Amino acid sequence: MTAEQRVAVLQEPEHMTVETRPVPEPGPGEVQVAVRAVSVCGSDVHYYDHGRIGGFVMHAPLVLGHETSGVVSTLGEGVEAPAVGTRVAVEPQRNCGRCTQCVRGRYHLCPWIAFFATPPIEGSFAQYVVVPATRAHPVPDALSDDAAAMIEPLAVAVHAAGKAETGPDARVFVSGAGPVGLLCLQVAKARGAAHVAVSDPVERRRAKALEFGADAVVDPAAGDPGLEPVDVVLECTGVQAAVDLAIAATAPAATAVLVGTGEQVTLPLDVVQSRELVVKGTFRYAHVYPAAIALAASGAVRLDDMVTSHHDLDGAEDALLAARRDPDAIKAVVRPG
Amino acid sequence: MTAEQRVAVLQEPEHMTVETRPVPEPGPGEVQVAVRAVSVCGSDVHYYDHGRIGGFVMHAPLVLGHETSGVVSTLGEGVEAPAVGTRVAVEPQRNCGRCTQCVRGRYHLCPWIAFFATPPIEGSFAQYVVVPATRAHPVPDALSDDAAAMIEPLAVAVHAAGKAETGPDARVFVSGAGPVGLLCLQVAKARGAAHVAVSDPVERRRAKALEFGADAVVDPAAGDPGLEPVDVVLECTGVQAAVDLAIAATAPAATAVLVGTGEQVTLPLDVVQSRELVVKGTFRYAHVYPAAIALAASGAVRLDDMVTSHHDLDGAEDALLAARRDPDAIKAVVRPG
Amino acid sequence: MTAEQRVAVLQEPEHMTVETRPVPEPGPGEVQVAVRAVSVCGSDVHYYDHGRIGGFVMHAPLVLGHETSGVVSTLGEGVEAPAVGTRVAVEPQRNCGRCTQCVRGRYHLCPWIAFFATPPIEGSFAQYVVVPATRAHPVPDALSDDAAAMIEPLAVAVHAAGKAETGPDARVFVSGAGPVGLLCLQVAKARGAAHVAVSDPVERRRAKALEFGADAVVDPAAGDPGLEPVDVVLECTGVQAAVDLAIAATAPAATAVLVGTGEQVTLPLDVVQSRELVVKGTFRYAHVYPAAIALAASGAVRLDDMVTSHHDLDGAEDALLAARRDPDAIKAVVRPG
Amino acid sequence: MTAEQRVAVLQEPEHMTVETRPVPEPGPGEVQVAVRAVSVCGSDVHYYDHGRIGGFVMHAPLVLGHETSGVVSTLGEGVEAPAVGTRVAVEPQRNCGRCTQCVRGRYHLCPWIAFFATPPIEGSFAQYVVVPATRAHPVPDALSDDAAAMIEPLAVAVHAAGKAETGPDARVFVSGAGPVGLLCLQVAKARGAAHVAVSDPVERRRAKALEFGADAVVDPAAGDPGLEPVDVVLECTGVQAAVDLAIAATAPAATAVLVGTGEQVTLPLDVVQSRELVVKGTFRYAHVYPAAIALAASGAVRLDDMVTSHHDLDGAEDALLAARRDPDAIKAVVRPG
Repeated sequence: MTAEQRVAVLQEPEHMTVETRPVPEPGPGEVQVAVRAVSVCGSDVHYYDHGRIGGFVMHAPLVLGHETSGVVSTLGEGVEAPAVGTRVAVEPQRNCGRCTQCVRGRYHLCPWIAFFATPPIEGSFAQYVVVPATRAHPVPDALSDDAAAMIEPLAVAVHAAGKAETGPDARVFVSGAGPVGLLCLQVAKARGAAHVAVSDPVERRRAKALEFGADAVVDPAAGDPGLEPVDVVLECTGVQAAVDLAIAATAPAATAVLVGTGEQVTLPLDVVQSRELVVKGTFRYAHVYPAAIALAASGAVRLDDMVTSHHDLDGAEDALLAARRDPDAIKAVVRPG
Repeated sequence: MTAEQRVAVLQEPEHMTVETRPVPEPGPGEVQVAVRAVSVCGSDVHYYDHGRIGGFVMHAPLVLGHETSGVVSTLGEGVEAPAVGTRVAVEPQRNCGRCTQCVRGRYHLCPWIAFFATPPIEGSFAQYVVVPATRAHPVPDALSDDAAAMIEPLAVAVHAAGKAETGPDARVFVSGAGPVGLLCLQVAKARGAAHVAVSDPVERRRAKALEFGADAVVDPAAGDPGLEPVDVVLECTGVQAAVDLAIAATAPAATAVLVGTGEQVTLPLDVVQSRELVVKGTFRYAHVYPAAIALAASGAVRLDDMVTSHHDLDGAEDALLAARRDPDAIKAVVRPG
Repeated sequence: MTAEQRVAVLQEPEHMTVETRPVPEPGPGEVQVAVRAVSVCGSDVHYYDHGRIGGFVMHAPLVLGHETSGVVSTLGEGVEAPAVGTRVAVEPQRNCGRCTQCVRGRYHLCPWIAFFATPPIEGSFAQYVVVPATRAHPVPDALSDDAAAMIEPLAVAVHAAGKAETGPDARVFVSGAGPVGLLCLQVAKARGAAHVAVSDPVERRRAKALEFGADAVVDPAAGDPGLEPVDVVLECTGVQAAVDLAIAATAPAATAVLVGTGEQVTLPLDVVQSRELVVKGTFRYAHVYPAAIALAASGAVRLDDMVTSHHDLDGAEDALLAARRDPDAIKAVVRPG
Repeated sequence: MTAEQRVAVLQEPEHMTVETRPVPEPGPGEVQVAVRAVSVCGSDVHYYDHGRIGGFVMHAPLVLGHETSGVVSTLGEGVEAPAVGTRVAVEPQRNCGRCTQCVRGRYHLCPWIAFFATPPIEGSFAQYVVVPATRAHPVPDALSDDAAAMIEPLAVAVHAAGKAETGPDARVFVSGAGPVGLLCLQVAKARGAAHVAVSDPVERRRAKALEFGADAVVDPAAGDPGLEPVDVVLECTGVQAAVDLAIAATAPAATAVLVGTGEQVTLPLDVVQSRELVVKGTFRYAHVYPAAIALAASGAVRLDDMVTSHHDLDGAEDALLAARRDPDAIKAVVRPG
């Protein structure tokens, strides 16, 4: 008899239910993970609101959630590690392993990537998930279940900051003080950035940036902040006005990493050229879970302080709505256990 | 008594005259060069037509011309090389040597750069010019005077292709088959690119690209050319539709170098991110004259074949209008001698 | 009934025989290739002489040969390309696909790599070999069978030169004018190097280097050649005296790639530090067969001119001894057909 | 009448005196700095013992000392900043500004570099020194005078770690727990390294490494420490046995930066090649004083904790001998005030 579990399903935009479904069994090379915590991402909220993100469209009900921690509960055939009982951060992607991108080491750009909660792949608002064993990353005791779930957005920030090669010689401008911006800020500081400024139009968020270590905050509405030009931009909003501000803040030979998503972005070509800017797109992450776990475990990045509410599986919809209802919300966490 | 020379002066848009002016004398560290050839750049034509390029505005009459070769005619104080009589390609820029950009090795990004024929700096449609001795680059006999002048646009292409790190493993897309596009094509081939495709809406230009070694040509109006995705884009038009085509042609992890000038450019953010593209602005050049001279001297890049008309100083205006009058024109050369 | 083929086997050092063995059948994802040409590498000769190379020791008879071309003769299960009848250059390595090196895109560093003619893996002095389909690279008609075999050593040179990032701005010093040195020379030129000097103590080899495009040759015994310091060293001998000469030739911030094999190398630490040299080990190659094929097909690298003798399978031992017997020998080719 | 000052002069090896000399006056573009603290470097001790370091030989008495802080006391002609009274860390090098290395941004590799306490350039065991204004770097109040002096060795570590591109994904092996090793350790951690192991044969030094944040320490005499292979080596001893251990610790594709000085180093060529190691020489530093100051000011690097004794100018010889007399000594500081 197949075991059953409860999952939170987005039936259509703005309509979530909790259903009973079979517990997934791990195949060869896979592990089953009993989910402990799932933190909510802006993309989950976007699917909840619109049923799509760009070209990714829900054509059927979808289990949301992809920032996931848990405990290994069953090993598939041939798997030796991580052992049953190991607490893990779940890297929510599965690549083909054979295409040009995979053999070049860029598995996150695999055209056949399957990523949690990206239609038609189901997510982790569930009691159990199954992933390749290599995507279940053991975490030390120093990391809470919540923090282990948030390794996922931290991985985004680590990957993005890595593209900018921010080191101790860098002055950094983080555009946007939402969850990803706050993580980019922390990662830039953890990499030894000399100075990190964070811009956000919302005063509360600027205050949060200061709490998380920003050397300066910028109110876009307040006119020229009089900052020294920066070597690195980490643009975390995808909003044109914010991009404009960030590009204007650059020194010659600066690198701007575009983290915030959107459909298009307009750049001042003359500025990009006369400063010889390097503009880089960043997409999720590859190979960075261990680094993200180490940063969080050492205390260099504070994840638990970003959690502003907890919910059980029946409260998954509330978790999605938390940011909307509470202006101080940063990260809502669902605990399906 | 000061010697005199003749110079071609743009008095105002579409109005050029030839005037007599004092021959400039070299100061300490400078050399005087007797000009042999000045090839015409699109920027010269743009000033002729509009009196400005973006923020650079003519507020007074201006001597145009910056692609320059000649013979060293007088040495300033303290100069030992190049000797009087040396044939040289003139690098038409003078930097401060002290600012952050200069001491970091990026002298072309010096905020106090003085560049020929960029208001208010006079250009080289003249019999004599004065430059720092380090900017007068000796050329071998293998280079004609015309070719030595065109080292300047070749330097643009060498610098741009260097940013893309095109090597033998690169599939390259050159957007635009004007002079800079044809040079970028040749440099990419000279760096061993596996395949170079060139796009241009004009059939004659596509034919030129094939003459200069393109592996394939693309007519933007003809629909999808069915090319394999490319690793490198060298965008040489600054035109939005061409940028769109070029970005669409990229493989994941490709680099797009923006060579063609303009005021702004709109990029498909989702594509830039999901392919993790690297978009680089390029601005003139630094440190590349010797490399450009070597490429031309070895025959790897053919410069003389790009010359389609010659003019004396009185014909400088005709040289500027050549491209307008002759659809086959690529490069017009003024010989002020 | 299993088909049979003839293979040349090194029974022990200096003792080769030709044996009859079963033709290998391709498994899933593999192709069988009917061998057309196998060029001889110094490593084959080293096994012939010593039965070992460093830690790789023959404990049983071994089929030598790894520079291989042929025609696809049978497809294994699930293989769609290359089709039967396709002429291919055979990349003679098979990696695990799962280890850290493989998933990072460095498949040649896979600790479980199986490489032709490296004990206990059999080589290609045979009528048929079997390889993963992805390692059978189609070649155009422009490449002879001999040239297609020599794509292998060319791949070594492409990979090594790629590590040095030789571009048009590079002055290059190739240490050693043996087969690999001559290929590194040609690749450096094909990448647009401004100047390539080649050193070798043997006059005939220096003459060869000039034939293959060297801008200068250096006789190590003749004292200081008076070269301008170089940006890139490609050291192809593994001999200490040659390394010394090559390091001495460097300019500050130069890169030295160590291609020639050996057990240890002593570097002048004060020079490595005061010039901030970058010294890179290079090992075989990864991802470069298509680039090597394109360079050879375009004529940028001349492979056929390197062949100095042909042998049938019974003459494989003669092929190994060719370099010893003929001071003008560069590459001997075995045609097992 | 010229002002006089007292300086500590090494007359010949093992013979130091204190002399009275004229106070140096700043020329155009220079500032005079009243010295507050000079920390002792191993190179000072080496001159004291041997009168030379490699090719740098004392032919006359020499003022030692180059790790220097002070207060700007007089401005030379044309200098606007830093103002008189500013506390500064003194970067003890003066480059020509015109050679290839300088214009490429590598001013520390200038062949005409003048560096404090490197014969025949006098050092800073003095009451006043004169330096180019651009080499007097203002420090915030958070930095003590001692710490400001030690920005110099910290700059060495920042420059070296920068060459290794240590980021959060790096496992690092620091070879040697002397002052430079302890600083490299701290910089690697400040850049977010996931794990830093430090090796030293002396137990007391290993204990210090743990105090300064090492994740593990290695006793070279104790056999294989069972570490995971590392991505980055920072070799800070120049001792062959330590180099051997460090290279053995590398993972494939690792970078080893050679910080510790010496005359030669022998590398296992087969390991360098089969792992495709990158070995980099590092020489002093360029452009990193601001980064080093920021790291120290933020507390990411602890400098004051490294000071183990203080001396006045008459005690300069004692300062040089401190390390010899006290096995717990790390940094001795001379205060000439």
